[in-house]
Amino acid sequence: MSNENQTTEKPWGGRFSEPTDAFVERFTASVDFDQRLYYHDIQGSIAHATMLAKVGVLTEQERDTILQGLKEVQDDIEQGRFEWSVTLEDVHMNIEARLTDKIGITGKKLHTGRSRNDQVATDIRLYLRDEIDIIASEITRLQQGMLALAEREADTIMPGFTHLQTAQPVTFGHHIMAWFEMLSRDYERLMDCRKRVNVMPLGAAALAGTTYPIDRNLTAELLGFDRPSNNSLDSVSDRDFAIEFCAFASLVMSHLSRSSEELILWASAQFNFIDLPDRFCTGSSIMPQKKNPDVPELVRGKSGRVTGHLISLLMLMKSQPLAYNKDNQEDKEPLFDVIDTLKGCLKAYGDMVPAIQVKAASMEEAARRGFSTATDLADYLVVKGVPFRDAHEVVGKAVAYGVESGKDLSEMSLAELANFSDVITDDVFDVLTLEGSVSARDHIGGTAPAQVRKAVAAAKEMLAAR
Amino acid sequence: MSNENQTTEKPWGGRFSEPTDAFVERFTASVDFDQRLYYHDIQGSIAHATMLAKVGVLTEQERDTILQGLKEVQDDIEQGRFEWSVTLEDVHMNIEARLTDKIGITGKKLHTGRSRNDQVATDIRLYLRDEIDIIASEITRLQQGMLALAEREADTIMPGFTHLQTAQPVTFGHHIMAWFEMLSRDYERLMDCRKRVNVMPLGAAALAGTTYPIDRNLTAELLGFDRPSNNSLDSVSDRDFAIEFCAFASLVMSHLSRSSEELILWASAQFNFIDLPDRFCTGSSIMPQKKNPDVPELVRGKSGRVTGHLISLLMLMKSQPLAYNKDNQEDKEPLFDVIDTLKGCLKAYGDMVPAIQVKAASMEEAARRGFSTATDLADYLVVKGVPFRDAHEVVGKAVAYGVESGKDLSEMSLAELANFSDVITDDVFDVLTLEGSVSARDHIGGTAPAQVRKAVAAAKEMLAAR
Amino acid sequence: MSNENQTTEKPWGGRFSEPTDAFVERFTASVDFDQRLYYHDIQGSIAHATMLAKVGVLTEQERDTILQGLKEVQDDIEQGRFEWSVTLEDVHMNIEARLTDKIGITGKKLHTGRSRNDQVATDIRLYLRDEIDIIASEITRLQQGMLALAEREADTIMPGFTHLQTAQPVTFGHHIMAWFEMLSRDYERLMDCRKRVNVMPLGAAALAGTTYPIDRNLTAELLGFDRPSNNSLDSVSDRDFAIEFCAFASLVMSHLSRSSEELILWASAQFNFIDLPDRFCTGSSIMPQKKNPDVPELVRGKSGRVTGHLISLLMLMKSQPLAYNKDNQEDKEPLFDVIDTLKGCLKAYGDMVPAIQVKAASMEEAARRGFSTATDLADYLVVKGVPFRDAHEVVGKAVAYGVESGKDLSEMSLAELANFSDVITDDVFDVLTLEGSVSARDHIGGTAPAQVRKAVAAAKEMLAAR
Amino acid sequence: MSNENQTTEKPWGGRFSEPTDAFVERFTASVDFDQRLYYHDIQGSIAHATMLAKVGVLTEQERDTILQGLKEVQDDIEQGRFEWSVTLEDVHMNIEARLTDKIGITGKKLHTGRSRNDQVATDIRLYLRDEIDIIASEITRLQQGMLALAEREADTIMPGFTHLQTAQPVTFGHHIMAWFEMLSRDYERLMDCRKRVNVMPLGAAALAGTTYPIDRNLTAELLGFDRPSNNSLDSVSDRDFAIEFCAFASLVMSHLSRSSEELILWASAQFNFIDLPDRFCTGSSIMPQKKNPDVPELVRGKSGRVTGHLISLLMLMKSQPLAYNKDNQEDKEPLFDVIDTLKGCLKAYGDMVPAIQVKAASMEEAARRGFSTATDLADYLVVKGVPFRDAHEVVGKAVAYGVESGKDLSEMSLAELANFSDVITDDVFDVLTLEGSVSARDHIGGTAPAQVRKAVAAAKEMLAAR
Repeated sequence: MSNENQTTEKPWGGRFSEPTDAFVERFTASVDFDQRLYYHDIQGSIAHATMLAKVGVLTEQERDTILQGLKEVQDDIEQGRFEWSVTLEDVHMNIEARLTDKIGITGKKLHTGRSRNDQVATDIRLYLRDEIDIIASEITRLQQGMLALAEREADTIMPGFTHLQTAQPVTFGHHIMAWFEMLSRDYERLMDCRKRVNVMPLGAAALAGTTYPIDRNLTAELLGFDRPSNNSLDSVSDRDFAIEFCAFASLVMSHLSRSSEELILWASAQFNFIDLPDRFCTGSSIMPQKKNPDVPELVRGKSGRVTGHLISLLMLMKSQPLAYNKDNQEDKEPLFDVIDTLKGCLKAYGDMVPAIQVKAASMEEAARRGFSTATDLADYLVVKGVPFRDAHEVVGKAVAYGVESGKDLSEMSLAELANFSDVITDDVFDVLTLEGSVSARDHIGGTAPAQVRKAVAAAKEMLAAR
Repeated sequence: MSNENQTTEKPWGGRFSEPTDAFVERFTASVDFDQRLYYHDIQGSIAHATMLAKVGVLTEQERDTILQGLKEVQDDIEQGRFEWSVTLEDVHMNIEARLTDKIGITGKKLHTGRSRNDQVATDIRLYLRDEIDIIASEITRLQQGMLALAEREADTIMPGFTHLQTAQPVTFGHHIMAWFEMLSRDYERLMDCRKRVNVMPLGAAALAGTTYPIDRNLTAELLGFDRPSNNSLDSVSDRDFAIEFCAFASLVMSHLSRSSEELILWASAQFNFIDLPDRFCTGSSIMPQKKNPDVPELVRGKSGRVTGHLISLLMLMKSQPLAYNKDNQEDKEPLFDVIDTLKGCLKAYGDMVPAIQVKAASMEEAARRGFSTATDLADYLVVKGVPFRDAHEVVGKAVAYGVESGKDLSEMSLAELANFSDVITDDVFDVLTLEGSVSARDHIGGTAPAQVRKAVAAAKEMLAAR
Repeated sequence: MSNENQTTEKPWGGRFSEPTDAFVERFTASVDFDQRLYYHDIQGSIAHATMLAKVGVLTEQERDTILQGLKEVQDDIEQGRFEWSVTLEDVHMNIEARLTDKIGITGKKLHTGRSRNDQVATDIRLYLRDEIDIIASEITRLQQGMLALAEREADTIMPGFTHLQTAQPVTFGHHIMAWFEMLSRDYERLMDCRKRVNVMPLGAAALAGTTYPIDRNLTAELLGFDRPSNNSLDSVSDRDFAIEFCAFASLVMSHLSRSSEELILWASAQFNFIDLPDRFCTGSSIMPQKKNPDVPELVRGKSGRVTGHLISLLMLMKSQPLAYNKDNQEDKEPLFDVIDTLKGCLKAYGDMVPAIQVKAASMEEAARRGFSTATDLADYLVVKGVPFRDAHEVVGKAVAYGVESGKDLSEMSLAELANFSDVITDDVFDVLTLEGSVSARDHIGGTAPAQVRKAVAAAKEMLAAR
Repeated sequence: MSNENQTTEKPWGGRFSEPTDAFVERFTASVDFDQRLYYHDIQGSIAHATMLAKVGVLTEQERDTILQGLKEVQDDIEQGRFEWSVTLEDVHMNIEARLTDKIGITGKKLHTGRSRNDQVATDIRLYLRDEIDIIASEITRLQQGMLALAEREADTIMPGFTHLQTAQPVTFGHHIMAWFEMLSRDYERLMDCRKRVNVMPLGAAALAGTTYPIDRNLTAELLGFDRPSNNSLDSVSDRDFAIEFCAFASLVMSHLSRSSEELILWASAQFNFIDLPDRFCTGSSIMPQKKNPDVPELVRGKSGRVTGHLISLLMLMKSQPLAYNKDNQEDKEPLFDVIDTLKGCLKAYGDMVPAIQVKAASMEEAARRGFSTATDLADYLVVKGVPFRDAHEVVGKAVAYGVESGKDLSEMSLAELANFSDVITDDVFDVLTLEGSVSARDHIGGTAPAQVRKAVAAAKEMLAAR
């Protein structure tokens, strides 16, 4: 990089009396990470040039020359013929410099009526919009996998937990539909975020707008934006959309971390509820028997990473005065890493979830232990006229007896049960079965297999309508 | 509280063989902070009882007794006649215990078909929904104040900054409208969040739903919820809405921290752009001359607090297995403090912003210094046929000369200016005035006074339609 | 509070032409939360007055009057006879006002040569120093409980996990000693933090020092500080010590969250490794059989809270210019809540850990399943001359066979084992026992019972030397 | 990478029946980022092999073969002849595979008595220890630059600010020494952190230690560690040292963000206190007059990045059960980025700080405005017998008069001043000069030039003793 000590190529050298320090040049350059915006930068430039020609700032011929030049630059990049230069600081100047190499002085006219401040804000929004659409698809694909699994296991009974203690029997399908609900909210949030991403800052120029007779509605239309932004100062300083996106992503990761925790628990020898296919696991270099649930573990770990980036952006923007400050260059790496991380995790989950192998017998056996139908017994007593709080106490005592004697409720004799309340009669054993317990929770949102199937059907319709 | 060592009142004592440790009782109790949910807890109970009667689980008379009792409990609380007990753990058990004191055994029936898990989730959502509506009003009030200020100062010229260096002249009204835009996005986000808050978990019971023939649509309607939730496990474990709200609040505080930073700068002797009325400032106990912009400083500081709570909730939920875990008790204090903090800051800002006193002469003087019309000179050259990048360099050299000679561009003679480019003629001085500069940025989002007035008018309509 | 609209009592009213807004007064006041500093504020004032008398700024009589007055104010506060006033903003002005009420004009002289800026910084450091000492004791107490448990269970075998998959047998005592190590580092960090807390800012006055001939070494000595601070600007603006303390606390909570996770897992029906005494658990209002590990769950949840406060402080200080800004008032509530939370969690853990009831048979049974001695078999092969990586593969195949055939390694016949490698002979069964496995790891830090006992002994010595 | 769909090279393939999914392989591999540990991985292996030979697990010849092979691998990497393979997952397996390629079956023996779990923990600690030493040097270099600047400007008077309002005059040297103090604490924290980094996990093997007769003290000595770790489970799961380091780094960045904020303010036209050399600044692509303080802005922005990574690690470790989990792979990227960021910022600051150009006249002029000697006037009154609080009020009124009449205190006539208190006589003007004001604050930590010089001298000694 022999030219790093010169500033001859800088777009702003006029008033400077000494070149940028070589270390400072590297320290402040963004081209290493913002080059991934090249495609959207060129799309933005095409629309800008088209608009400039329409309003007469460029001739049609200048426009065509620029468009042809941009197309060639894009080819160069995509064919690996483009050498990015740190001296040229960022993706914008690198592309413009190459354009000018190709088409000469006309290339310099492309920057008329805009600034890097509005240009980069536009690029990121275009880029993020495309990534949002990819992520939306990945969420949908994962949700489809969940639906398939939930439908397959709508009747499979497992212990439902609160406080990681056996609480009441639920169906595995119902549990998976809880995961589905989390992602449905995420999808909604993503769509809400997209609305606010899809607003065009271009035309704000450095901070105040431009004296050229630009047509921002036209540019917005060409780029598929819903509308141009309302205020130029806000346009170049706003990074809300990146923060909102990272907050969305943090919630997705929060959900996946919870599912991951459950998969890890379920795949342990102690729970033994599921098997993950070998292809999603790895082994140990020292312990030959190990089969580790790497994918869920890694996804769980990555939740911290995404939240870390969210904080980094919130702290970045804290107390920045308007309009653009160099600090904002720090918006990109966290955002890009959040996008990459999220796509990776969703893809891994999308592949893995439908391949989960359920050990139904082991789940059911676990549900059978742990007094999971104690609430059903309490409800039974209530139906027989015992006030709920009293019924609760009766069952509590029966359970205490069960813990001592090593018997589940369904294993006690009628005589034993009747010790605790004389309203208990023979029909009690109907409510103490697992099947009876889950089927009885037959209302919107309840765990009854019939409700799970309804929920799956409704969910399929919803996905189809996306 | 002499009864802290007993557990006789506990709703779950049946299977326990020793009382809760006194310290543990205090450590795990939530009543000190969740008592603020009392009103919504009672509203939820009223709807639940009404529904239970409708489906025949309660008689009409039982319902009436319960409703009357709840009304009395509410009165007791609001009249200061209610003693909250740590032994009773939380707001729910405190209220139910008092209800049972009042109406006897029927009080115990109120808990039929629900659990504290779905009850607390319902309470928080009802509470947060009301707070959201208050916050929405505060945002609107603050935005109205901004509009008034922006309209008043639509022609006032100040230096626009990037990198805190004088960039181009803008109008103060335009600057304030940038603040307005930030809050408009916040308002939208709040409304999006509200949709997801307004879903009813009640009926999920502990985690699996209930065996009673509840009518969740009816309860939802009675409580003004858009719909009952779709999945019982998700209903009791979901805290997304609290996190989404805190993410919204973090962005509001990010915006206010930026405005605060600007107000603090502007009120400094060095900027001297504004005066804050004495009633929003305090003095120093040691330096008699001080007048400190306490309100903006404090608001700026509180941005960390709100983001801290956001993290606390994201970390709280990380990798929790379903369904309810005691960890979730930790959701309340951060949420409550975010609500209180946000309301306080919005109120303080709502009072203060319209009272900001602008020092227009000082602002204009600052804009006149600092070569703020350099871009206008460059644009002038472009119009005369100089390619933009070349024009930029010409002006750069003129500025370097100005720095050396202590002259702003408008203070140079034609001869001096013509040294840098021979296309410069007498008409150059038109574009070097501040008024000319701002008026020339006359497009959507530009800083021209005409555009600011249009933006204000459109904003007023938008607020009116809320 | 009828006097809230006046400012006559304000210590800085001279240059102000209108009173503070009543809402602003409440919004900016800190007395609601900083009154907990009263004791240390008074200690600081006593030392300050003593020093002022020593250097001749106060007469001895003035000093005695002030000291007597301060003693009475302290009594008033501790006897509940002190009414805190929001109008007087903070703990400092409240106390000074009361002092002046009591002793007249001499009270006003106490503030000579100091400012609230250095006063509050001194108060917080004194307060935090005392809390650090309490927390250090709580850590030691908890560590003693761990040692007792570890010693008791030095021979108890459980499965060691990696990836929550059975890895190798370890002893329960060894596991608890891992927790002990975490807290040992925490203790060291706390002591390191204490060094930096124990530096005296008093004398920095508002920001620049004072013109009075103060003797900072004397004041520091009177207050038990290691030394006065080196720079007045830094002294009033520095909040590093609070951040460092919160970072320390975040690590403690990280450790307790990990222990909590394990306790919750171990107390589940699926693991069934331990029982927590009833007094540390609570039940369910709806499910009579539940016994929930509330304390570990709540502690796990509180880890987010503490980290949230850490972030809040880091964000608070971000990019604050020197010296004191009102933002810093926001340092107290997070710090205080971290202190309270940490003390509560350590106390709960200190009570609970030694009361953990171990189900040794169940642990051992779990260790026996899951091929936990596979590494021992591999090591056996290596000793017989098989390269480690090859041995690993041999055992991997034996385990695969075991998974299929439902046999643990120790349950296979010699013939079966010899199928995988012909170096396996009869002595293999010695290394496949759990006892043999753990005893063989007999080096510093290894899980052999002998090593655990050594570690416990060394730890006891270390604690004794604190 | 055509072999990505195979697992033949995996060190743990034995029990697996299907190959790792190609996407999963990439998703879970760490070699892309952990290859930077290659040097320390090899150092660790050299020490491990040396120890194994000493205790008789390897022959001397095997050891020599391994050491020679490792040396060649290191050469290959450093000469760019090493192709990293994602299939081999991480730096450890890549290096071991290459070693085995080179030296055959003996290479497989290197892994005897260790696991990747203790290996990676050792590598990171060795790596971080070296980076800590580099960072310590950078801090010292920056502090030396600060001392040079402080000494040069020990007499330069500027306004000291609180609340960004002019408070009292200070010297610029004193202000820079406040920055110095912050970094002194950082240095201490770094040294404290280093103690805890420099403990050796090697020998913990997978989690429980090893059955080979290893000598951990020897390995520790060979690698320059203070001691081997005390507990194997803790050794492989502990990441405290990374978190503590990131907390340290967050504080450094907090300090640099504050200095950055000040530099940005001071370089603004409004403050005009300093000039940053052109080589640390950049210009604007659209506004030819701009000279932007890019380095301070970027450093300020990077404070969020570092704190984000701290959070990411704290959240990563939250509630992980022992011992090693795959989640921990996520520890590296945040840590590495914190190291890189911190080194870059310290280097940039180390270059820039001594090159700051002070505009002394402008600073002094600012100090002269703003009633900065008001406290001196109050102190003057106190010396004349007026109680401090009353003196404060007198001066407050004089200032209010000055604001109205546009006169600083030193510009008022004796008659004017005497209006406010009749104890004011001719000698008042001595205390109203800036020089008098700063010189009078002549105690440890005060702003008097004499004190600043003493502080600089003491600081130089301290640095010399490092």
